[in-house]
Amino acid sequence: MSDEIRPGEEQLPFDPADRIEAGLSFVGTIRSPWSKGGCPRNISRARETGKGARIELCPGYGRALLGLKVGQPVIAVYWMHRSRRDLAVQAPGHADGPRGTFALRSPVRPNPLAMSTVMITSLDAEAGVIGIDAIDVFDGTPLIDLKPWLSTVDLPPGWTPDT
Amino acid sequence: MSDEIRPGEEQLPFDPADRIEAGLSFVGTIRSPWSKGGCPRNISRARETGKGARIELCPGYGRALLGLKVGQPVIAVYWMHRSRRDLAVQAPGHADGPRGTFALRSPVRPNPLAMSTVMITSLDAEAGVIGIDAIDVFDGTPLIDLKPWLSTVDLPPGWTPDT
Repeated sequence: MSDEIRPGEEQLPFDPADRIEAGLSFVGTIRSPWSKGGCPRNISRARETGKGARIELCPGYGRALLGLKVGQPVIAVYWMHRSRRDLAVQAPGHADGPRGTFALRSPVRPNPLAMSTVMITSLDAEAGVIGIDAIDVFDGTPLIDLKPWLSTVDLPPGWTPDT
Repeated sequence: MSDEIRPGEEQLPFDPADRIEAGLSFVGTIRSPWSKGGCPRNISRARETGKGARIELCPGYGRALLGLKVGQPVIAVYWMHRSRRDLAVQAPGHADGPRGTFALRSPVRPNPLAMSTVMITSLDAEAGVIGIDAIDVFDGTPLIDLKPWLSTVDLPPGWTPDT
């Protein structure tokens, strides 16, 4: 983990990793075709490769899939365990200037959790394995939650494709 | 926290709270008009009340808002700290039968994090306070992340209002 600060970046006055107030338990592992150096830059690029991925739940979680269906969108929430947590302002290469951590989807954040909306392509509740259409994370990334995507909760109010 | 099991519900073979592998640091607090017994059932109902809410960031996080704008949709991620974590299958009143935890948005889950897509109605980076259009959580709920909503990441692929 780098602790370099790029021009325009600002550190928080503390490291959130030193102020832990609640605990996460990993519920599974994301199996993807990607490793360091070869990961698509975002999920759209990952989709363009045509390569799917797989979620392997930890033993005991298979029954928690009851009611999910192939073809359904779900939100995968995962933990970017290699990311630093202490930046308030970041200067990513793709942005036109420094931006606050809460204005970015960067894995660098006080709580390095990330999420993507993905499609279920296969489902084996017995084995606790879910196929998904694509994902832009390294193989082995820990999963912390899986939620059904709901237009009533997950769309901005009043959103249409033209907005 | 109740440990009652309703008909059709199933417990995990362990309590995820006993298997903590990563730590969360609260970054703020949600200030809502809602307390136990009076919380809207979902965010659509909360919007119908016309009552907004407020996110108060912990000291030090104001700069992390740089680049966010009033009128922008953001995903608020919060921690349902009063929820039990050990159910694999649940029988909520609104559903037509038992459903797996990963097929529900219930706060009862291995990692009781929840999220809503909300609109920014005001922004005071100096004070670290963000007004939001509505939310369906109790006053005092701890915030763990704030992310810009992005159609490329947060919409199911190929989604249109008719699907």
